[in-house]
Amino acid sequence: MKPYSKMSKEELQQEREALEKKYEDAKAKGLQLDMSRGKPAAAQLMICRDMLDAINGSSDLNSSAGQDCTNYGVLDGISDIKELFAELMEVSPKNVMVCGNSSLNIMYDTISRSVTHGVMGSTPWCKLEKVKFLCPVPGYDRHFAITEHFGLELINIPMGENGPDMDMVEEYVNKDEAVKGIWCVPKYSNPTGITYSDETVKRMAALKPVAGDFRIFWDNAYALHHLYEEEQDTVLEILAECEKAGNPDMVYEFCSTSKISFPGAGVAAMVSSEANLAEAKKQLTLQTIGYDKLNQLRHARYFKDADGVRAHMKKHAEFLRPKFEAVLKVLEQELGGLEIGSWSTPKGGYFISFDALSGCAKAIVAKAKEAGLVMTGAGATYPYKKDPQDSNIRIAPSFPTPEDLSVAAEIFVLSVKMVSADKILALK
Amino acid sequence: MKPYSKMSKEELQQEREALEKKYEDAKAKGLQLDMSRGKPAAAQLMICRDMLDAINGSSDLNSSAGQDCTNYGVLDGISDIKELFAELMEVSPKNVMVCGNSSLNIMYDTISRSVTHGVMGSTPWCKLEKVKFLCPVPGYDRHFAITEHFGLELINIPMGENGPDMDMVEEYVNKDEAVKGIWCVPKYSNPTGITYSDETVKRMAALKPVAGDFRIFWDNAYALHHLYEEEQDTVLEILAECEKAGNPDMVYEFCSTSKISFPGAGVAAMVSSEANLAEAKKQLTLQTIGYDKLNQLRHARYFKDADGVRAHMKKHAEFLRPKFEAVLKVLEQELGGLEIGSWSTPKGGYFISFDALSGCAKAIVAKAKEAGLVMTGAGATYPYKKDPQDSNIRIAPSFPTPEDLSVAAEIFVLSVKMVSADKILALK
Repeated sequence: MKPYSKMSKEELQQEREALEKKYEDAKAKGLQLDMSRGKPAAAQLMICRDMLDAINGSSDLNSSAGQDCTNYGVLDGISDIKELFAELMEVSPKNVMVCGNSSLNIMYDTISRSVTHGVMGSTPWCKLEKVKFLCPVPGYDRHFAITEHFGLELINIPMGENGPDMDMVEEYVNKDEAVKGIWCVPKYSNPTGITYSDETVKRMAALKPVAGDFRIFWDNAYALHHLYEEEQDTVLEILAECEKAGNPDMVYEFCSTSKISFPGAGVAAMVSSEANLAEAKKQLTLQTIGYDKLNQLRHARYFKDADGVRAHMKKHAEFLRPKFEAVLKVLEQELGGLEIGSWSTPKGGYFISFDALSGCAKAIVAKAKEAGLVMTGAGATYPYKKDPQDSNIRIAPSFPTPEDLSVAAEIFVLSVKMVSADKILALK
Repeated sequence: MKPYSKMSKEELQQEREALEKKYEDAKAKGLQLDMSRGKPAAAQLMICRDMLDAINGSSDLNSSAGQDCTNYGVLDGISDIKELFAELMEVSPKNVMVCGNSSLNIMYDTISRSVTHGVMGSTPWCKLEKVKFLCPVPGYDRHFAITEHFGLELINIPMGENGPDMDMVEEYVNKDEAVKGIWCVPKYSNPTGITYSDETVKRMAALKPVAGDFRIFWDNAYALHHLYEEEQDTVLEILAECEKAGNPDMVYEFCSTSKISFPGAGVAAMVSSEANLAEAKKQLTLQTIGYDKLNQLRHARYFKDADGVRAHMKKHAEFLRPKFEAVLKVLEQELGGLEIGSWSTPKGGYFISFDALSGCAKAIVAKAKEAGLVMTGAGATYPYKKDPQDSNIRIAPSFPTPEDLSVAAEIFVLSVKMVSADKILALK
């Protein structure tokens, strides 16, 4: 295909008219499609259903350590589930605290505690003139929303192929006392799909923060969410790296089974140094008597061990892989060579990240919506929902059925082409 | 029995020696007993087990309103569980938000949000010089601990037979702008077991707070927790009363199934005006994508309706009633007429409240502990763990086996007698 920018004005105008016709045809169908949400499809979740039979009314409902899962108590998780998370996250059970169903909730609470009570004796962030938080972009909107909600100043850090721009991270963290944290999705990052390189992890762990209460918020949400059996990204275990670099308390890691078992009915964990967990527990004990231990037991009994989880994840991949491939195929076929957009080809996670021509993302999302396709709002992958280039669009291929997905991808590329053609025509 | 204070010095010394002997005998047994925790016994929880069969891997896992309980979404609870709580709490489902497993967590989060973001546009409490919170005493230690944690100034309000001293409550709330809330357990109060009279509820609802962000924290933890079929306390529905009095947004009500289904694996709800719930949800949507809808569905399917819950509560009462009666019998037999203590005879809830002679509570709890009986720490029922009279002791008869309970009650009364005799002897 000839790049749009290399076409003559007449050629591009013709192309634009042909696109318009196709678009009107699609619009006339009155479709209702959704590629906005990183959630599993209903059919995919059927593979988790037998977890509900892992415990029943006549089961032994004690943990392996003899903890009664039907009664109050055990704030930081029953022995079995701690061991499972420890094995999965490659740490010791003493570095694991298992909570309720939402890792986002643990992150929110961790920020909230820092705001009201500080971190290990530091000044509460709400008492400080200014608190800054680093946000690798594009990134996860819900991360940014939490820190925005508490009035922190969010700073964009560009993401590259190997993770955040570490020169810039070091510049901020090692020189500015107001910088208190950074959001990271180290593996199959939301939305770019990249995985932090070993060098990135090592530099992250070796930061020399001016602020004693600086923490890395390491949201390992897609740790086990591979699309391919033969090609899997790996990321260095961050707790050990921080320990080696003399920063044992610098990281909070978060993970959950939300996209392993049931979204919303899974279990979530915080992984950190014993000192950090002790501090968290001291405050959590005021917030709750304990989390749902029966659901923890249900998970532990069902999966048995890390291999059980890994085997289960292969079943998820069977659903997700063809969806990713279907979208990527349409992108390649329809946009390849046009030079009006680039996209990621992730090996795992839940997203494809699309970069349109500068200034086109909002218009593309609006165009798609007009034809019945809901995309994640343009800008959502940036703090304050402001993408300075108006370029990034997050594509979530997991939820629609395979049939809907091809149609959705067609509408998306049509929208990209039309908006891009308009932009280039305006310059000719 | 002759009151200790009316005994001659010699009589009381003889009594004291006899007590000492019994106490040493008890101590020699090396007992390990616990009357400190308001939690159900293991045997009692067996009656809830078939709830785990209410849904399984082949169940329809959609709510009645068609909400998919296996996936993300539905922040404020599925239709079925909202309707169940609405029926139980005598309100409309639109006044119900169902969350995770812990009502304490909802209360903590509600206070935390007020501290960091204010209430409906009011100044965040963390930005105020002073925030005061009213604490009816004796009361629930975990309530007091939350507000203490956020640095609020806690003010003791004496509890009477009909609830908190409303003259004092009105004096504070209607005159002092720094007073932002009050903790209430309106039914089978923790620990006194009393239920607020209609007049108390009406006066509470008719408060004219100076602070626009004053809220009643109405922890209806024991709404359905009757000990007797024929003698049940009732409490006026507070939302309607507040509405009638022109204060529709003045109350947050909290409840849970923690002592109905499984402690720790139940569901909890906040009941309030639509405006209050809308504000809570606006912030909760940043904190979590949603709570465990499968557990909500499990509860709704198991109980079916309010009558289902009430029938289930009768089974709990079968376990609890004899335990309360066993302790009360020992108290009456061993302490009746001695004038060294008074105690409540609740019709529901989880506690018996004991008032020792002034200055004796700590010594009694210590004495009991020495003989192997753990009681709730003296002072725990007061803010800052400071009982100004050193008099109140919370007795929790629910957890020990019936056999252990009689032994525990004997050790308790022995401890009361010894410490009281010492006090009276010192004055003779």
